[in-house]
Amino acid sequence: MAAIETGLLVPSPSASSPSSSVILTQDELKKIAAYKAVEYVESGMVLGLGTGSTAKHAVARIGELLKQGKLKNIIGIPTSKMTHEQALSVGIPLSDLDSHPVIDLAIDGADEVDPYLNLVKGRGGSLLREKMIEGACKKFIVIVDELKLVKYLGGSGLAMPVEIVPFCWKFTASRLQKLFQDSGCVAKLRTFGENDEPFVTDNGNYIVDLYFKTSIGDLKAASDSILQLPGVAEHGMFLDMATTVIVAGELGVTVKHK
Amino acid sequence: MAAIETGLLVPSPSASSPSSSVILTQDELKKIAAYKAVEYVESGMVLGLGTGSTAKHAVARIGELLKQGKLKNIIGIPTSKMTHEQALSVGIPLSDLDSHPVIDLAIDGADEVDPYLNLVKGRGGSLLREKMIEGACKKFIVIVDELKLVKYLGGSGLAMPVEIVPFCWKFTASRLQKLFQDSGCVAKLRTFGENDEPFVTDNGNYIVDLYFKTSIGDLKAASDSILQLPGVAEHGMFLDMATTVIVAGELGVTVKHK
Repeated sequence: MAAIETGLLVPSPSASSPSSSVILTQDELKKIAAYKAVEYVESGMVLGLGTGSTAKHAVARIGELLKQGKLKNIIGIPTSKMTHEQALSVGIPLSDLDSHPVIDLAIDGADEVDPYLNLVKGRGGSLLREKMIEGACKKFIVIVDELKLVKYLGGSGLAMPVEIVPFCWKFTASRLQKLFQDSGCVAKLRTFGENDEPFVTDNGNYIVDLYFKTSIGDLKAASDSILQLPGVAEHGMFLDMATTVIVAGELGVTVKHK
Repeated sequence: MAAIETGLLVPSPSASSPSSSVILTQDELKKIAAYKAVEYVESGMVLGLGTGSTAKHAVARIGELLKQGKLKNIIGIPTSKMTHEQALSVGIPLSDLDSHPVIDLAIDGADEVDPYLNLVKGRGGSLLREKMIEGACKKFIVIVDELKLVKYLGGSGLAMPVEIVPFCWKFTASRLQKLFQDSGCVAKLRTFGENDEPFVTDNGNYIVDLYFKTSIGDLKAASDSILQLPGVAEHGMFLDMATTVIVAGELGVTVKHK
């Protein structure tokens, strides 16, 4: 289990009395977690920049602090083409892993967080680049709203994504489903648009989403079994990678350390 | 270790006396192994069709037997675009893994074979599709000339290929090299042409060739370490997959069974 600190919910408590009940939207919670994470950023750092609806608040905040001169000499390593665009637009100087193979700190969202700080990521489709970059970080801060906390990975009933090569994807999807048949696994190709076109990742691959009825048990063993299937490029379980998880909820911000 | 049978070198010994010393080229040895393998093919089979300079003799021979009516109702599953073309040209009806997820028999060459029938494959660049298809076979016959036999994988001093996503390939190549630094590993991007363009696989990926000075030890552990690196799609070690290896050498044909 992780060590836990808790804090006040709102960044500046002065405006509301303790008894007032402010109902925050999920997006506001995401923003609170993102701003809290950016407090860990220091001038001169090489930063992994995450992808998705929570990470985008962190990217915007870093751009703001650069503009205000409160941060200097930051180099960002974006985890997707989308984040690349956003970071450029807010004025964060960018580079890549080839030029900066060691990253000081990465900040990113997650789709699920278990009590041991293992994650499911990739519902946004950027799992492979995220895993490359966040696996090269000294510190990896994950920012989530409290709805992302689960008892076990897959426990939200939502997708655990696997990136696969397009070649004979039905075959690979069926092998994935069979691998976890004891957990009631259903494997579905991710599609988009009116014509159900396959969703294509930044790497030209497809995504198969796995849905489980029950826990898949030993995560390390599950990870190895998935990776051993030829045709699989990567999966969305991020095991033993997060060093800090910042959770924003109605009752406050919780910071969990590894 | 594998069980071993040996046989006469030439398919039809009638033409030469036992004392005559016929020097066979490497390509003739490949052809002898390929023809021997095709003896295992029966009408009605779904066949995995390998890629490369040895496998092409098997594909040609299967086409010949179909034309002669000695084989019927064969369905071929090609392991590359190149083999797809060749099989069509010699009249083998084709399908894919999505329609035929169980394959009766696959025949393919290999770049190295160790005493336990573990293989290195993929110097031709088709390792991923080969591994998908040959991993779905009831029987997998490997055909090689005797120069491919090694004491341990990597022992020929030639490449052990790894297929990786193009994104930040230098970073991935450097992590691969570091993984095997105790074995004196050197990782090189595979290129082609005058301008050293990166070689691109049928799946749109790159190949990094690993060269080792000494044995990499536990192959299963090495395989898992490679697959755990994000950015890696597949590697060229085919462990515990071959059921039969047919070796053609100057002194005869040897058939090794698992």
